[in-house]
Amino acid sequence: MDQQIRLPQGYWFGGVACGIKPSGLPDLAVVLAAEAVVAAGVYTQNLVHAASIDWNRAITPSEALRAVVINSGNANACTGAQGVADNAEMAIRIAAKLSEREGGQVGREQVLVLSTGVIGQHLPMDCVRSGIDRCLEAAEASAAGFAAAARAILTTDHGPKSAIVDGPSGYKLAAMCKGAGMIGPNMATMLGIIVTDFPLTAQQADAALRRAVDRSFNRISVEGHTSTNDAVLLLAPRCSAADNSAQLADFQECLNQLCIDLAKRIPTDGEGAQHLIHIQVRGARNAVEADRIARAIALSNLVKTAIAGGDPNWGRIVSAAGYCGAQFSVDETSLRLNGIEVFRDGQPTAFDRRAASQSIRDNRLTEIRLSVGSGPGETEHWTSDLTVDYVKLNAEYTT
Amino acid sequence: MDQQIRLPQGYWFGGVACGIKPSGLPDLAVVLAAEAVVAAGVYTQNLVHAASIDWNRAITPSEALRAVVINSGNANACTGAQGVADNAEMAIRIAAKLSEREGGQVGREQVLVLSTGVIGQHLPMDCVRSGIDRCLEAAEASAAGFAAAARAILTTDHGPKSAIVDGPSGYKLAAMCKGAGMIGPNMATMLGIIVTDFPLTAQQADAALRRAVDRSFNRISVEGHTSTNDAVLLLAPRCSAADNSAQLADFQECLNQLCIDLAKRIPTDGEGAQHLIHIQVRGARNAVEADRIARAIALSNLVKTAIAGGDPNWGRIVSAAGYCGAQFSVDETSLRLNGIEVFRDGQPTAFDRRAASQSIRDNRLTEIRLSVGSGPGETEHWTSDLTVDYVKLNAEYTT
Repeated sequence: MDQQIRLPQGYWFGGVACGIKPSGLPDLAVVLAAEAVVAAGVYTQNLVHAASIDWNRAITPSEALRAVVINSGNANACTGAQGVADNAEMAIRIAAKLSEREGGQVGREQVLVLSTGVIGQHLPMDCVRSGIDRCLEAAEASAAGFAAAARAILTTDHGPKSAIVDGPSGYKLAAMCKGAGMIGPNMATMLGIIVTDFPLTAQQADAALRRAVDRSFNRISVEGHTSTNDAVLLLAPRCSAADNSAQLADFQECLNQLCIDLAKRIPTDGEGAQHLIHIQVRGARNAVEADRIARAIALSNLVKTAIAGGDPNWGRIVSAAGYCGAQFSVDETSLRLNGIEVFRDGQPTAFDRRAASQSIRDNRLTEIRLSVGSGPGETEHWTSDLTVDYVKLNAEYTT
Repeated sequence: MDQQIRLPQGYWFGGVACGIKPSGLPDLAVVLAAEAVVAAGVYTQNLVHAASIDWNRAITPSEALRAVVINSGNANACTGAQGVADNAEMAIRIAAKLSEREGGQVGREQVLVLSTGVIGQHLPMDCVRSGIDRCLEAAEASAAGFAAAARAILTTDHGPKSAIVDGPSGYKLAAMCKGAGMIGPNMATMLGIIVTDFPLTAQQADAALRRAVDRSFNRISVEGHTSTNDAVLLLAPRCSAADNSAQLADFQECLNQLCIDLAKRIPTDGEGAQHLIHIQVRGARNAVEADRIARAIALSNLVKTAIAGGDPNWGRIVSAAGYCGAQFSVDETSLRLNGIEVFRDGQPTAFDRRAASQSIRDNRLTEIRLSVGSGPGETEHWTSDLTVDYVKLNAEYTT
């Protein structure tokens, strides 16, 4: 294995093009664990969801996971009984191949399945079957394998989103995710896979992942459409007793930061995006109301088009906060746009409109800081702007 | 008065350009009642709202209304104490001028104020003062006056939205409204003024208007951003006793239909819109859940861009229903797009994708019919598609 990138030990990665995507780009990946590992997952809250989501929910948290198979280009959602059978076949095939290779008994319940892509079309299973076989052959514990897997999970993303970090006490985390559209803030809203060599119990893995996702992937959006296939997984070595308590807080901190860093890359790469918009809300009555305000701003097309156009039209931001249902006093509300105070205690300021516009145009990041009083509620949220290219991209996706 | 258009008797209308809009287009209108009339209003639910909304809420329902003054080009919202004073001055000036003219006593509490336009800028009061004087001079009970008022309340609308109808028992209704952007479904979501010669008590006017708005203006959206200034008013002659009961049901029916007809024109004229999307939901557990499903579909940028592109990407419609919080069984869910069945009882159908695309492209109206089971809940909703022109229009509105 390539020493330079220092992947967590014990994981193999592979990615191939198997023909699901008409473009011929890579569309099938595997992540394999050399030994049974702990696995936690958080999944979309959409009532309408892919066959893979039900499959994975029945398995995680697990203490005996061996593989994750991921296909892109087809969500295998809204595909009825055939979709359920196709999903199961993917897990069964991986389990059978691993059993064959090891002369042991790997069960289908040790394999998770992730799918992403167009909704409502059946998977081309001939492609998938041969793809799985080739992908298992190609998998390796190397930087090249990791990169191949990170590429094969993408759809409209501009490029891979992955990170490998060292924890403070010698363990490592490696993560990859995908997502650029159909990004709405309700549980994990994309695909993400994190592997670590930090030992955890299944319960610890589950709790740590939920905490990290709540502070990261649940605070991003592109257009707020919660997908049918969202899933974030965490794989870690089993830890029979909770003998990692001294380092667990460190690990959580490291996991949070990794997830935040990865999560921000999704709206940065949002379909057609020209700006990453960072929304900070403080002074709300409580955290729930702060969150409601941040999301209303993040999901307002009028806010997002104004940023796209370099227009400091701050009335749209304040009015979005106003319709979300949170209670606050307009007279105690102030707003800064890229550091420029545009609204103070309910009154418009005499700011330099041209300079504010130039500041938005000149920076890839737009900072919105809204203070709605003196309450303890605060949060942050990341979203993309809404551009002509977003509309063009999404006006002809399947046809 | 022009007999041809048969306005309800007892109302005068005027519209002028007073210099609020840099374009020089008409931006100030009045609707005057010859005698004190009943007035009901429904207003935006946005916590952040214009000075005019507080003013009107304190007045309606009223039994002694004499005038409505409307300015476009400036919302007078988020303008603090100065905005409150400017709003009051508009009403006070109208009342004083009417008192002067009649040698009588018209009070400020007999004047309603509506504003629409950019948020967070102070009204140019010199323009407004002289505009009010000229508008009162110009007002007349004629088709020309009605048309001038209907033009002066517009912002990004392509043209006036007005209607004059005859009720079954000889009375008349005349209505004008404006709205093309910042249209979100929560109470009245634009400006609308309806006048009638059908006598009502204040309580009847209030109840009738709420019923009609709930079935019309509350079921439309463009991008779902609830404005700071929404208001719909109904003016009617006073009726001291409830001696209109024989005709009240007819009147309600007529008012409902008028409001639905006008409401549909708003998303039809939605900023950049190429399609009016009519969403019908049935089979939900109850009306609230049907409404939630229809709104989620109406507010999904992915649904709206697909329609703009003529893309029968129906997975976006079903998945939007799935994330709105309503409970239903995917296995009992079916969907028709412009009459073409694309999803039946949880299974994709083998529909002709090219024909479906052509059908969307060829028609200004797109029909979405979603059935989610056999429950009694049903509703309908109208929205616009999301086009490149919507983004262009909204990327540079104030700068």
